[in-house]
Amino acid sequence: MKEDAFQALTVETLAARLSTVPAVAERVGGVAERWKVREVGDGNLNLVFIVEGEAGSVVVKQALPYVRLVGESWPLPLKRAFFEYHALTRQERRAPGLVPTVYYFDESQALTVMEYLSPHIILRRALIQGQELPRIAEDLGLFMARTLFRGSDLHMETRERKADLALFSDNTELCDITENLVFTDPYFDAPMNRHTPELDALVAEFRVDRDLKVEAQKMKHLFAAKAETLVHGDLHTGSVMVTAEDTRVIDPEFAFYGPIAFDVGMLTANYWMAFFSQKGHAAGGSRASMRTYLLKVIEETWAVFRAEFSRLWRTERAGMLYHRSLYEDQGDELGAEQALGHVLHEIWTDMLGFAGVEIHRRILGLAHNADFEDIEDTGLRATCEAAALRFGRHIAVNRHHIASLTEINHLAQLLDEGCASAQTGRQS
Amino acid sequence: MKEDAFQALTVETLAARLSTVPAVAERVGGVAERWKVREVGDGNLNLVFIVEGEAGSVVVKQALPYVRLVGESWPLPLKRAFFEYHALTRQERRAPGLVPTVYYFDESQALTVMEYLSPHIILRRALIQGQELPRIAEDLGLFMARTLFRGSDLHMETRERKADLALFSDNTELCDITENLVFTDPYFDAPMNRHTPELDALVAEFRVDRDLKVEAQKMKHLFAAKAETLVHGDLHTGSVMVTAEDTRVIDPEFAFYGPIAFDVGMLTANYWMAFFSQKGHAAGGSRASMRTYLLKVIEETWAVFRAEFSRLWRTERAGMLYHRSLYEDQGDELGAEQALGHVLHEIWTDMLGFAGVEIHRRILGLAHNADFEDIEDTGLRATCEAAALRFGRHIAVNRHHIASLTEINHLAQLLDEGCASAQTGRQS
Repeated sequence: MKEDAFQALTVETLAARLSTVPAVAERVGGVAERWKVREVGDGNLNLVFIVEGEAGSVVVKQALPYVRLVGESWPLPLKRAFFEYHALTRQERRAPGLVPTVYYFDESQALTVMEYLSPHIILRRALIQGQELPRIAEDLGLFMARTLFRGSDLHMETRERKADLALFSDNTELCDITENLVFTDPYFDAPMNRHTPELDALVAEFRVDRDLKVEAQKMKHLFAAKAETLVHGDLHTGSVMVTAEDTRVIDPEFAFYGPIAFDVGMLTANYWMAFFSQKGHAAGGSRASMRTYLLKVIEETWAVFRAEFSRLWRTERAGMLYHRSLYEDQGDELGAEQALGHVLHEIWTDMLGFAGVEIHRRILGLAHNADFEDIEDTGLRATCEAAALRFGRHIAVNRHHIASLTEINHLAQLLDEGCASAQTGRQS
Repeated sequence: MKEDAFQALTVETLAARLSTVPAVAERVGGVAERWKVREVGDGNLNLVFIVEGEAGSVVVKQALPYVRLVGESWPLPLKRAFFEYHALTRQERRAPGLVPTVYYFDESQALTVMEYLSPHIILRRALIQGQELPRIAEDLGLFMARTLFRGSDLHMETRERKADLALFSDNTELCDITENLVFTDPYFDAPMNRHTPELDALVAEFRVDRDLKVEAQKMKHLFAAKAETLVHGDLHTGSVMVTAEDTRVIDPEFAFYGPIAFDVGMLTANYWMAFFSQKGHAAGGSRASMRTYLLKVIEETWAVFRAEFSRLWRTERAGMLYHRSLYEDQGDELGAEQALGHVLHEIWTDMLGFAGVEIHRRILGLAHNADFEDIEDTGLRATCEAAALRFGRHIAVNRHHIASLTEINHLAQLLDEGCASAQTGRQS
């Protein structure tokens, strides 16, 4: 099929078109005419099919030349499938077992055939339902530490890292989405923005909040210019599939060379949003256990990330940065530990900034989260969102002066209980 | 000549080989057999010829497939000529009149024909001679502000900036030289290092100076990962040609996407080294006026840089960072000024770090400066170098806590007079 002009797959044509691809035919098995094909894409951008046959199942993901959520009026190049494929293979090498296995990739058709994860569900959905997944903190803490450390000049051969930087620097259109939708649009009256009407007064506050707008742009500056490592680029709870026993990170089509702290901040922000949205899904109850669980997941994820990053620093620091010749080889292990402390501290402060901005764009920008959107009572939804917005503003603007997650999670609890709005912004 | 296998030019073959190139033949004029050809390359890497004829003169610069200073045992790819050519054309667009005009470029021969600057001399040489050039502070302050601002996401169209980032990211071998020779080798006993023997005790101090070694590696981290703008990459006083009326920046073959502060720090470091070396060239006098002049040049260069960067921020901030939609378009000019202050402050602290490291590598690493090397009395040379080393250590380690150039130049004077060694490091 390679080199053919792009054609979008359909439920009707998929079996005929992919039956000649051995990687697919053997895995699905049986006669192609009897394959069961379903389109299940619920994301914003792509077609996603599940194909089942006698021998097994696969997922077929195909990019479309436009944004699915918006339509053909918003073109988006097919090459994002190419970046997703290359990110997936690198992530599998760097953090084995935490992404779906790729069976086949066709660049001209922007088509990837990969492992069908079952009975996995999207993490965001699980958190909305109130499921306390036991593995996510450890699995995602490890995923981030391993992919982010091993894709940087702390670990890689420099020439290879620079070649990858050049390769992914062409992923401009998807970076452009982040640059505009995440870092800019939420902070002025951009055409594609929307927000729950009850937030009008708070939104008006944000639009004149000079410190917040400067900090958001400093985060954009970091996003654009801190080319440290290959980041996933869209690591929210909708990009993770889970069971109680297994965690997989999917959809790295936004991958590019950016700051280590970006993935960490985005994931953490989505946990905080899950936290602030819980009372909207409590149906009379309090979701007390789930709320406690979510804050604990945040602390544990960060602790696992730090511990694994530190372990890799001590055992796999083979790249050109903070080279052992200056420290360990001189008998100065403490020098390397001092540098590690500085690097982790910068990830910490940047992570808080990215988290604050991610929370804002999910409530004020174009792409909202089901965590809040599924709350039908807009008054209740706005209460949840307002606490999250204030919290995001607090951590973004004060990111250099926040001591610990324990402390900041305590503030999150106060805000969630409606006790702390006066502490973190003018009353709306 | 294009597509031919690479052949190094010689004084004997140059006229015959370039007489068919109209850009050269017309400019030099007359019969090629009567062209006057001299090889004048005194740099570390390339061949440089001056070609004179009836109509005029040109400079022909050709890269060699190895480091000229070291020989064929240190190969270096010819493509550096390609990066130099592309950097020169961009610099000419961004800061007109401050680089030599390029007449012709042949990629396969790694050969650039450009304007012959006469009666210009190398700025480093002029400063060693004690010449007080009246234009360098303004010209180079403007050069840096204009090239660095206009090559960044503050000004450029993002897609174009990313394409340039990818283009220059292939300049790995020259970046590798900086990464090793500037940021790493000087801080341990690397094979290619050398230093004036009288510095042994101070060098031993530096090798166990944990704070310095951590800070130097943080600067390397910034150099490698802060892809803000197209930097010159080797902007020392040997890369500037001057007369009293004219200033031109040459040799941008180290160009790549790096931190705005890198060029500023390297140039400033070389002025400080010129300052600390003056008493080695005083021949009985004090060079008092020249010493005052050099510190004034440093302050003026930074003032011009800041003023022009600020002017461009207010008038040409057309890129995606700190977009006007959030500030001026909302009537919030002060928001844009606040962000400008933050950006300039970061350039300031990073500039001091890069300057400190550049001073160290020029005294402890492979490539030394004539400023110090020309001082024949090694005892006197070591006195000058020791003051510079201590100064460099002070500004690198304390860069977040230095208020102004006035203050730090005062410390430079104290050190230069031998009064402050105890304040800035243990006695050697």
